[in-house]
Parts: sequence; C-alpha cells; structure tokens
Amino acid sequence: MTSTRATLLQVAERAGVSLASTSRALHGTGASRAMVERVRAAAAELGYSADAIGRSLRMKKTFQIAFAVADIGNPVYVEMMRGIHEVLAPHGYRVVVMTTGDTAASAAELVRSLNSGFVDGMVVIPLRTDDELIAEIQRAPVPVVVIGRALSEHGVSSVSTDSAAGIGQAVRHVLDRGRRRIGFLNGPLDTTPGASRQRGFDAAIGAEGVHTERVETEIAGDFTVAEGIVAARRLFDRASGQAPRLDAVVAANDLLAIGAIRAARELGLSVPGDVAVTGMDDTELGRVFLPSLTSVSLGSAARGRAAAELMLGLTDDPDQQARQIAVGPELIVRESTTDGAA
Amino acid sequence: MTSTRATLLQVAERAGVSLASTSRALHGTGASRAMVERVRAAAAELGYSADAIGRSLRMKKTFQIAFAVADIGNPVYVEMMRGIHEVLAPHGYRVVVMTTGDTAASAAELVRSLNSGFVDGMVVIPLRTDDELIAEIQRAPVPVVVIGRALSEHGVSSVSTDSAAGIGQAVRHVLDRGRRRIGFLNGPLDTTPGASRQRGFDAAIGAEGVHTERVETEIAGDFTVAEGIVAARRLFDRASGQAPRLDAVVAANDLLAIGAIRAARELGLSVPGDVAVTGMDDTELGRVFLPSLTSVSLGSAARGRAAAELMLGLTDDPDQQARQIAVGPELIVRESTTDGAA
Repeated sequence: MTSTRATLLQVAERAGVSLASTSRALHGTGASRAMVERVRAAAAELGYSADAIGRSLRMKKTFQIAFAVADIGNPVYVEMMRGIHEVLAPHGYRVVVMTTGDTAASAAELVRSLNSGFVDGMVVIPLRTDDELIAEIQRAPVPVVVIGRALSEHGVSSVSTDSAAGIGQAVRHVLDRGRRRIGFLNGPLDTTPGASRQRGFDAAIGAEGVHTERVETEIAGDFTVAEGIVAARRLFDRASGQAPRLDAVVAANDLLAIGAIRAARELGLSVPGDVAVTGMDDTELGRVFLPSLTSVSLGSAARGRAAAELMLGLTDDPDQQARQIAVGPELIVRESTTDGAA
Repeated sequence: MTSTRATLLQVAERAGVSLASTSRALHGTGASRAMVERVRAAAAELGYSADAIGRSLRMKKTFQIAFAVADIGNPVYVEMMRGIHEVLAPHGYRVVVMTTGDTAASAAELVRSLNSGFVDGMVVIPLRTDDELIAEIQRAPVPVVVIGRALSEHGVSSVSTDSAAGIGQAVRHVLDRGRRRIGFLNGPLDTTPGASRQRGFDAAIGAEGVHTERVETEIAGDFTVAEGIVAARRLFDRASGQAPRLDAVVAANDLLAIGAIRAARELGLSVPGDVAVTGMDDTELGRVFLPSLTSVSLGSAARGRAAAELMLGLTDDPDQQARQIAVGPELIVRESTTDGAA
C-alpha cells in the first residue's frame, strides 16, 4: 500500500493535478475526459501499477468515507471532521457527514445502509451503543471505525479518550482556584459520554471531597446550549435554597458550559468572579466565547486523525486485527475560571 | 407522486416502522431481512403499487440527498441542514453533508462526482460560481438545486435571499441607534456572499450617507471568526489614525461579527457601549453569545426547506421547469446594538 500510495502521489505530481483528481481519473468516477487522459498519460510515463488500478476497479471503490455523528450542530464534530479530512484527502477520499440519530437503533440502521455501497467505510460516533449496533458494525460490508467506547474485544477498531479522567482534571482545577461549592452539569446518563463523565465526577469527588463544602449534580435533557440553560437554572435554583451558593460549575461539554454561563448571567452572577465554569471538548465556540472557556480537550482533531489512519489501514486490508487507540485529555485554562481575565 | 407518497406512508403505518425503513425495505437497500418481510407484508395487505416499486428499482434510488457547503464549521449551514432534513426525512431520504471546497472548480468536481450515483440529488451552496460549475450542474445525472445566486435563467432551480437588502437593514438600524461612524467588515469580494453584501453596503451608504460622519470598509480573508479578528483589528487600527473612532461595525456574517467583538474587547472597547456590532445569518452561535448578537436573518431554515421542496419536485419529475424561490431578510435585534442589554 505504501508503495502504491507513493506512486499515486508521483502520478499526481507528474500530471500536475490533485491526488483526489488523480484517484478519480484513474478509477473512472467523476473526472472529465481531459483529466482522465492527462492522468493516464502521467501514469503510463511512470509505469504506475496497472494491478493496483485493476484491484481498485474490481472493488468498485467510491473514494468516499462516511463520518456519522449524533448532532451535526455540535462543533466538536467539526474539528474531528477536519482531522479525518486531513488524513484522508491526500489519499483521494472525500468525507461525507451523516447523522446517526440519538438512539442505538437509528445508528444501527445507518450502519446497515452501508450495504448499498455508497462509501468505502464509515467512522461513527454513536451517542448510545447496544448489542444490535455492535452486531451491525461487525457484519458491515465495509470497514467501520468507532470513536467512543473501546470495542476491540468485539473485533471493532476504535478510538477512545478518557473523559472520566478529564472531568477529574476540571474538578481539581476549580479546587486549585479555591472554589469549594461545585455543581456538575452533565448530559443524559444513558449515553456513552454522560455515563463516563458521571463516573469521572464521582471518582474525583470521592478523592477530593474533603476539600469541598458542597456538591450538586444536575442532568440536562441533552448536550446542547438550550438544555444547558434550563438545567443550569435548576442547578442554581436548587443551590440557592441554602446558603452559600455554588462558586463553580463543571460542565460535561462546552455547549452545556455556555448554557451555565448564560444562566449565571441571568441571575446577575459574574463568570468567573462569582462562578467559575469549565467545559469539555475545547471547541472553537468555547475559544471565541466571552469569557473564553476553560475546557478539557479530548483531542477532537487527534481522534479524527487516528480514526482516519485506522480506516486507511482497513481499506487496505479489511481483515487486519482490530486496533484500539487512546487519546488522553488535557485541560486548557482560559478566562472562565481565572479572575485575571484578558 | 402524491398518491404514491400517501400509500408509502400507509404502508409504514401498517408495518409500524418509520417511513425511512419502509422505503429501504421496499427498495432493498440497507434493511434487515425481518424488516423487508414485515414491510412487504404490509404493502401486500394494502395493495401498495407494485409499479411504483418497480419504477424506483429501475431508477436505483439511493434515498440519499447530498447537501454540499463550503465550510461545514459555519453554523448557518447547520440550520439549513435541519430545514432540509425536516422536509426530506418524512419521504424516507437521508441527508449526507459534503464540502464543496472554496473554489468554483472544486464545487464543479463535486457535482461531477454525482455520476457515481451515490445520491438521488444534491442541494449545493457554492461559495463561488462560474460557467464550468453551471455547466456541470446542467449536465448532472440527478437533480441539483442551488442555494445562492438565482440561476433559473440557466435552467437551474435555486433558492436565493436578498443579503444586499439585509445589509441595508443593518446599516439603517445602527443609524437609528444614533451611530454615525460605521465600519463594514466583509468577506472576500470574489465570493457570491461577499459581492452581494458589498453591493448592499454601498447602496445603503449611498442612500443614507448624509447621516454618517465616517465610513470604513475592511475585507477579511474568509468568513471565519479567526479572520474576522484579524480584519477587525485592521479596521479599528485604521480608524484610530484619526479621531473620532468608529461607533458601529456592520459585519457580513455572525462569525465576522464575533471576531469584531473580540477585537473590540482587546482594545478595551465595550459592546454595544462604545461600538455596536451587527452580524448576518442569525446563527445559534450569535444567539448564545455574550452579548447576544443583533443579526440579519436570511431565513436559513426556510431556505433549506424551500430547497428540499424543489428537490422533492425534481426527483418526482426531473424535467419540470426550473424554479426560483426567494426568502426575504429580517433584522433580529439583540444585545450587541442595544444599550439596555438584558
């Protein structure tokens, strides 16, 4: 594969066109006649392997990889998609984005649709995972790579992160900043991210609880700003029943964190003066927000790149053993937890 | 078609499964055997038209529609996609999102890829349009609907808005708020949105210029927050050369507007106290930002729904005459231009 790729690159350079155009021209999908002639001439000059072309033709490659996410509006997926694109584009692949829906069943239906052969593989981030979904992934006619739960014991290649440890970093950070009354704003507990983040929060409070004066947890209806506002109002309402009020909110993602900041402002609370707020996912939205958001990076772009690398390996050899890549969390400190805001 | 659709819905209800599953089961793409049996039984009970099934099979329908945009990270496209999904999903279609790239040539290459038959149609928003792209759309093997420039004179169905008039609304709004020194933060002038917004700004200043003390224009490298910050710094720098400084920035979209707010804050200017800022596109990002953003809505969801309706008509009858739908702009006033901020 490596030598084939190198040769394809050489053909592209000789023809003076992009790798994507070269792939398409050689595989007869979506290239103009002039482009096909130009690229075939370059391939002939360089003695580009006819076998490789023949193999791809027999496989009816589409040179498209699907990226399937629950909510296309969540900016964390945009960064993942950029990471995936970065790795796949040089090999002539287009990325098409699809929605899994919220349930394991709707994700399973999407994986089943791979039977129609419209893509050469799928990178999927299921919000919820069950046995049916895993079975569909196992019997899919093209490679499927999962970003989320580690599934290598099921023979499925996956990229995971340790969001539980990441929540621990956020809890320790607000304690380090002197905060003692912590609210945890999580999403639904029956989701993969909700369950792992709750585990992380409970573990961190178990270890550091001696430093806290007060701990509250509130569960939002989903992982959006709108639901974050609603749940954060409940969190602050509940907390205001008894003095003293919360001085930090650890949120399960950046969208919920922004919901918490808006809810705090409605109550006349300043961020971070009265309440420090942390997010998770390190999205561009959090970076440009005012105040900019302290957030736990789960390496979105890095996870996208890792998934794309796994996919490249599997399109090469679909029978290779399932692999598992882990990307560690990293706390990025910004204005929403630091008083000396820029 | 209408009667076929109604019947398909009845089959779905009888089978107790979604319309999407029903379509897939009847057309043999991506449905489990149990699902196929269940749906075929329901179709048989109801006497669902075998002709309609046969026609769809001959057409090899994929029940997928592509939505192609320049920048998948721009939240305006998320709302359009939701509008498209809302109309197409009840008819059993999935939406797959793709990127056109920045150039007319890369968009043309994407339209050309429709030859591989992976979707039944494409809704495309080209950032730049040229004759080659229009020719590719005209010869595409499946229907293509354009959101952007009106192209009905080329036999292409399209959905447009009047962003020039929208910029005029924003200019008049800041003048009404008593601002007299206006900076215009636009994106590249060789793009469809950049050109129309510039035309709108120039026309508004032509009509209202007598009320202004000062007018400056700055062009960002693209329509992102990052480029907006850079260009807004130049705008404020240039403006600070001579007193008095700008008291309003009209931005060509919400991302550039947020860039302007961040650049203003860097200089210690308050928004809207010192500088009022308006955006365009009425994105969720602008709605949740602090301060929330006054923005010209171009009816993103409505444009998505209109494009999807045009697409449904064309998948029914690909030879029907090209249609043109226009969605008008509407100014949404929020905190970034009003001193009595919530």
